[in-house]
Amino acid sequence: MATTRTEPKPDEFCAEVRRGRGRPQARCDEETRAIIFAAARHEFAANGYAAASMESVARRAGISTKTLYRLIPNKAALFEAMITERLDRFASGVRLRACDGRDIEGALREALIVCGELILDGEVISLLRTILGESEKFPEIAQTFYHKAIRRTEGTLANWLQAQNERGLIKIDDAETAAGMLLGMLAFQPQRAFLFGQAPLPSRGQLEHRAKAVAELFLRGCACLVEESGADRQA
Amino acid sequence: MATTRTEPKPDEFCAEVRRGRGRPQARCDEETRAIIFAAARHEFAANGYAAASMESVARRAGISTKTLYRLIPNKAALFEAMITERLDRFASGVRLRACDGRDIEGALREALIVCGELILDGEVISLLRTILGESEKFPEIAQTFYHKAIRRTEGTLANWLQAQNERGLIKIDDAETAAGMLLGMLAFQPQRAFLFGQAPLPSRGQLEHRAKAVAELFLRGCACLVEESGADRQA
Repeated sequence: MATTRTEPKPDEFCAEVRRGRGRPQARCDEETRAIIFAAARHEFAANGYAAASMESVARRAGISTKTLYRLIPNKAALFEAMITERLDRFASGVRLRACDGRDIEGALREALIVCGELILDGEVISLLRTILGESEKFPEIAQTFYHKAIRRTEGTLANWLQAQNERGLIKIDDAETAAGMLLGMLAFQPQRAFLFGQAPLPSRGQLEHRAKAVAELFLRGCACLVEESGADRQA
Repeated sequence: MATTRTEPKPDEFCAEVRRGRGRPQARCDEETRAIIFAAARHEFAANGYAAASMESVARRAGISTKTLYRLIPNKAALFEAMITERLDRFASGVRLRACDGRDIEGALREALIVCGELILDGEVISLLRTILGESEKFPEIAQTFYHKAIRRTEGTLANWLQAQNERGLIKIDDAETAAGMLLGMLAFQPQRAFLFGQAPLPSRGQLEHRAKAVAELFLRGCACLVEESGADRQA
């Protein structure tokens, strides 16, 4: 039976490796890394940073600890690489929502939905909760999460806004602040309700509805704002 | 020397009580409760809910545990009463920023500053961090904080917005959602930066600047929004 599968199932402790030194190398490292990151997301979200171990991530991923350490040297590096991989996917998703110049409102709504899928993801919020709980013990982990996840989310949306600004589709003075306000409108209320265990996360339909309302309010609000501040400067 | 002060200083263990049963009752209960709540805020913010004790709150307040238990029966009741007292003060502050009909933008800016003083307070954020860290062990405390602090903050601003809506000064469809978006624009970005230990809290000037930008963007955005959604309904 063992010959019919080249890889162990997740959560089985790499039987192949224990059977001998010759491990079938059917997956490329890139595929293995993707499986490791998925396992790490589950592990860190479920147990927090302190209690997570390289061994339990390897077990969840169905690989040997030897393979894990060959690809990623330690837990801190795993944590950072996992976040970077998720944010790379997020940034690609936001960039894909570029605007062709005709429907800026639709394009912003789509970009905000991608942001909502990241910020209002149950595992991301669980991770956030445990990192905050452990931030005194592991300040470097809080710092990694802040810069590699939170700031990068803001920065990705800010770059998107700045691109539309340069194409003359919107008018904003400070893309970083504008991005922070947009994300706050979208996520602050539903994220807190879920963080405190008092409401489920928004459904896809609710997220789309909220993203639409935020995009509309923001685009009309910021256009007027800039005209006004331009008038102020001239006065 | 002891005769010159009727109450011990905070953080001294109630010397009067240890000297005998006759405790000078120079303060009214209302004043004592205010001192207890200030001590409880420090204690919960510094040590979290689990590690806080009625004894340490009494010590910080400079009163006997007997007095504390006479006024507040247990730690859960203390936690809730402390939050309710702070939110009562907040709600009064927001109500005072009612609008006389001439300067809705200035009135909203002032109301948002009061919200920012609450949400972006260092002790409130420390409390939030520890409650989130302990929310699995003490779900009832997370629930109390969510309903008595977070929802009440949103509700207080929603009532304010609804009052301006009824007076025809703004046009909104859903005051609760509008309040959540406003608070998110104001607080999400700076609160996360502080929560993760990566930036100080905004200064008074920065808060005023942000509240002004949020009020302007929101008022112009929501006015246009409602006109649009009215047009949608007719179409």
